[in-house]
Amino acid sequence: MKTYIGIDLGGTNVRVAKIDEDGNVLAQVKGPSYGQEGPARVMANIKEMVRELPGWKECAGMGVGVPGPVDTQAGTMVLSTNLPGFAGYPFAEELRKEFGMPAYLDNDANVAGLAEALVGAGKGLRNVFYTTISTGIGGVLVFDGKTVSGKHGFGGEVANIIIDRNREKVNYLNVGAIENEASGTGLMRKYEQRKGEKIAHTGIVFDRAEQGEEIAKACVEEFQRDLGQYFATIACVCDPEMFILGGGMMKSADKFLPGIIEQYKAMSHTAIEDTPFVLASLEEPGIIGAAMLPKSNGQ
Amino acid sequence: MKTYIGIDLGGTNVRVAKIDEDGNVLAQVKGPSYGQEGPARVMANIKEMVRELPGWKECAGMGVGVPGPVDTQAGTMVLSTNLPGFAGYPFAEELRKEFGMPAYLDNDANVAGLAEALVGAGKGLRNVFYTTISTGIGGVLVFDGKTVSGKHGFGGEVANIIIDRNREKVNYLNVGAIENEASGTGLMRKYEQRKGEKIAHTGIVFDRAEQGEEIAKACVEEFQRDLGQYFATIACVCDPEMFILGGGMMKSADKFLPGIIEQYKAMSHTAIEDTPFVLASLEEPGIIGAAMLPKSNGQ
Repeated sequence: MKTYIGIDLGGTNVRVAKIDEDGNVLAQVKGPSYGQEGPARVMANIKEMVRELPGWKECAGMGVGVPGPVDTQAGTMVLSTNLPGFAGYPFAEELRKEFGMPAYLDNDANVAGLAEALVGAGKGLRNVFYTTISTGIGGVLVFDGKTVSGKHGFGGEVANIIIDRNREKVNYLNVGAIENEASGTGLMRKYEQRKGEKIAHTGIVFDRAEQGEEIAKACVEEFQRDLGQYFATIACVCDPEMFILGGGMMKSADKFLPGIIEQYKAMSHTAIEDTPFVLASLEEPGIIGAAMLPKSNGQ
Repeated sequence: MKTYIGIDLGGTNVRVAKIDEDGNVLAQVKGPSYGQEGPARVMANIKEMVRELPGWKECAGMGVGVPGPVDTQAGTMVLSTNLPGFAGYPFAEELRKEFGMPAYLDNDANVAGLAEALVGAGKGLRNVFYTTISTGIGGVLVFDGKTVSGKHGFGGEVANIIIDRNREKVNYLNVGAIENEASGTGLMRKYEQRKGEKIAHTGIVFDRAEQGEEIAKACVEEFQRDLGQYFATIACVCDPEMFILGGGMMKSADKFLPGIIEQYKAMSHTAIEDTPFVLASLEEPGIIGAAMLPKSNGQ
């Protein structure tokens, strides 16, 4: 069975693993990423970690997931807010030269979606759309085993999709952008504003809605309606065989997902109402998806 | 050079052509489709027309574009409003058996997009999004030379995307669906309502807006804003290398397209502002795209 090297690089930590083509993690090394110290330090560290993996030379290729949009053809980051100095840096090329094997780069949400599509909840399907809902909202279409990362790496950067023009301007995103309206951060902001009270986490909103509190109920209904419309919009574009949902909010999925699906159906043609909404199944989609990048590219 | 058979089937007319892999039409037969008389008559007619093409036996495969959503894996129509009796009919299979060559079926807007992506305005690009704006609005993502037709054939059935929740309920589509708000039909409906006057075609609205009429100006601005938001939404999902625009409305593109692009930029991240908006370049994308289906499927 083929094996690959996956690298999950964040601003603070990095994980490097040897993973087989079914997504089994065979060996893993973790450590600080030195992400604030610039490419030279980060790359030297990664190279050392790769060499700590037993049998790394037998791997058929390597892939890296990074925080931010990626030019997947060039193998470079487009923006690198959390990894200063990496925008335009020849990341994949450097790994390719260093290790003498194919190397690929993609966005961390995209590789998580790739993992779920290839060896997770969407295994065996041709066309799946992955959405992660936590403090932010991201996603990716995986078609024919490949992430649709797009010209500028903004494929699946769904945060900025306008869901309702008549909302408040919150930040640099569009007025009514789905991330501001229906991420965990968005839900908390709106509830706190309306209730006039700070809360510790979004679970409180769902609990209070269940207990019948009107403000919480209204917030949860709006959250469900907004996300229902979001998924209906995605379906109009690519009609996936499955919606896969990941991210921290999914811990409370039983409290809100049925309502999202109901709204999705209300805004969709009858013929596409049966598209399943399935929770992400992998514990470590980030590192597994990074390792799937060479496989996804035919290695 | 490889050649293919393309079939462009409508409710009223049908065209059958022999086309080379660069999209050149080598021979063509046209006639009535007998679309209201059911599959037996329609298929017998098509088979006869294929045999009229000189050298049809040398073709490497055949493709059919039909009006309505298609299950491309099964080679069947999902709905067939304009072709009674064809929903679920084993269309591709019957052609495959009859002619002993690979046969494929897809939606007519999708094959037009495929033609533009493979041999038209998007030639050589990996990821293009085609939108047709006429009486209705349709589209399709073409990725890696394949249409993303989706699980139920609703990929690119963008008409139902909600662009503004606070609009009037018009028909079975969602309130604020892009097709009702920014198709030719939608633009005319809104102008006629506000002006209290029937007009012959949408060109009149653009002309009157240029002449400074306030109602026409407001309608055109809304049309541009709605379509700008639509394209910004598409970009968030798949970040195409190019937007290709087809359909009858494009005859007046010089009067409204710059305004759409301006709105698109206003609702998009700076990094993706440069995505080009290009008019469709083929005169007969429907028949050419049908013939490209076997090529797109590796034949």
